[in-house]
Amino acid sequence: MLPSKLDTLSPAEVRQLCRGGDFAGATAGVAPGYVQANLMIVPREYAFDFLLFAQRNPKPCPLVEVLEAGQFEPRLAAGADLRSDLPGYRILRDGKLAEEVTDISGWWRDDLVSFLIGCSFSFESALLRGGISLRHVENQANVSMYKTTIPCRSAGRMHGNMVVSMRPTKAADVARAVEISGRYPQVHGAPVHVGHHEAIGNADLARPDFGDPVEIRDGEIPVFWACGVTPQYIAMMSGLPFCITHQPGKMFVTDALTD
Amino acid sequence: MLPSKLDTLSPAEVRQLCRGGDFAGATAGVAPGYVQANLMIVPREYAFDFLLFAQRNPKPCPLVEVLEAGQFEPRLAAGADLRSDLPGYRILRDGKLAEEVTDISGWWRDDLVSFLIGCSFSFESALLRGGISLRHVENQANVSMYKTTIPCRSAGRMHGNMVVSMRPTKAADVARAVEISGRYPQVHGAPVHVGHHEAIGNADLARPDFGDPVEIRDGEIPVFWACGVTPQYIAMMSGLPFCITHQPGKMFVTDALTD
Repeated sequence: MLPSKLDTLSPAEVRQLCRGGDFAGATAGVAPGYVQANLMIVPREYAFDFLLFAQRNPKPCPLVEVLEAGQFEPRLAAGADLRSDLPGYRILRDGKLAEEVTDISGWWRDDLVSFLIGCSFSFESALLRGGISLRHVENQANVSMYKTTIPCRSAGRMHGNMVVSMRPTKAADVARAVEISGRYPQVHGAPVHVGHHEAIGNADLARPDFGDPVEIRDGEIPVFWACGVTPQYIAMMSGLPFCITHQPGKMFVTDALTD
Repeated sequence: MLPSKLDTLSPAEVRQLCRGGDFAGATAGVAPGYVQANLMIVPREYAFDFLLFAQRNPKPCPLVEVLEAGQFEPRLAAGADLRSDLPGYRILRDGKLAEEVTDISGWWRDDLVSFLIGCSFSFESALLRGGISLRHVENQANVSMYKTTIPCRSAGRMHGNMVVSMRPTKAADVARAVEISGRYPQVHGAPVHVGHHEAIGNADLARPDFGDPVEIRDGEIPVFWACGVTPQYIAMMSGLPFCITHQPGKMFVTDALTD
């Protein structure tokens, strides 16, 4: 049973719905004020390369928490289980999407290392408080995300380009959106690009690579933030033999407050 | 030939003196305004545990740069060689000091991963500019460092307590010293403890565990900052089979500006 008002649930309630198979949607606007996190799970053999990649690319990969190999209960959410408490997961093999599931208990192994990575949804409530409207939240849709030509710094066997999320922003609000999000470096911080999407390789904003399209109205500028889907794109570009990630837009909701 | 005025040399000149065996002293006050770094080198097998330890303990272990396995030329100092360009090194085996040397080329292996860690010397020029005197610099001595009972967050096989550096500070200057150093989170940031050294396990400030003792005068408070010697103390407490570190107080001088 899915409550109509996901924005009134506590993080633990959202996780319980996921665990029971009762919620499998995008988490934008869910449990506002709480830190949401992207998930990346890699075998221990690749954990150093990925941790180094995150250390070298803090804008797309701001680390919120790294668990020991085999562990699945994060400090930031007591009693949670990363294997079941997200709305959706992707299994990637040899850099390709192999399967989409809502529970990864059957894939779990003792050598898997889980990384929780900051998510721009975490600063969206601050943007809303600042009077900046967010169309994908109004539409109850997933944010638009795009592959770019912006290179990340490589680390060991990890290499590739950045993924960004895009929010159409009134020209008069762009500077304030930068200032507000800039206060949250742990969740991607300030935008990486403003306007001129062609310059970062996006031919057509109406066709996002992940998430849902949103209308860009007259007088609005597309503003691009580094996105926590970057790690799974990197896993694809690097041909990582095996990893598990969240489905884009379907985050892990932690008990940590954004502010 | 050791110039008498080390504070007028460029970072590259300091590194060249180290490489030629002409300087093997402490680097406090050397090349002011440039980032200095602690060094920790571990075999690849332990690199994830150590990187995770640093990620979980950013105050004592703020990462300045992590090199790929086998590499020894940092991005922050083009042309430098981490195997020869520090004034002194320690070889640790099974958590015990095995040897002190001024060049580690003979110990180098392709599976060694080098970590450069921020150093409080980097904010000392800012403290001096703020009118806060530093006795160990006046004395041309090494800063006093102490093992503490402050636990670090463990990571994999890495566990143990924090090492701190201590600077005697006039009571009227303590708040300003906190504010100034707090602006430099990449080099340990604000102090971890002010006064009451017994509370963190220091029985006798006149007998530091590393570095030189300094006088604490009437009206002065001992102020303690997280110290980049922590990793080697952790290596000792964890019984790490093999690692190489800098000798306490003898840092790698980078080309990066502190500000």
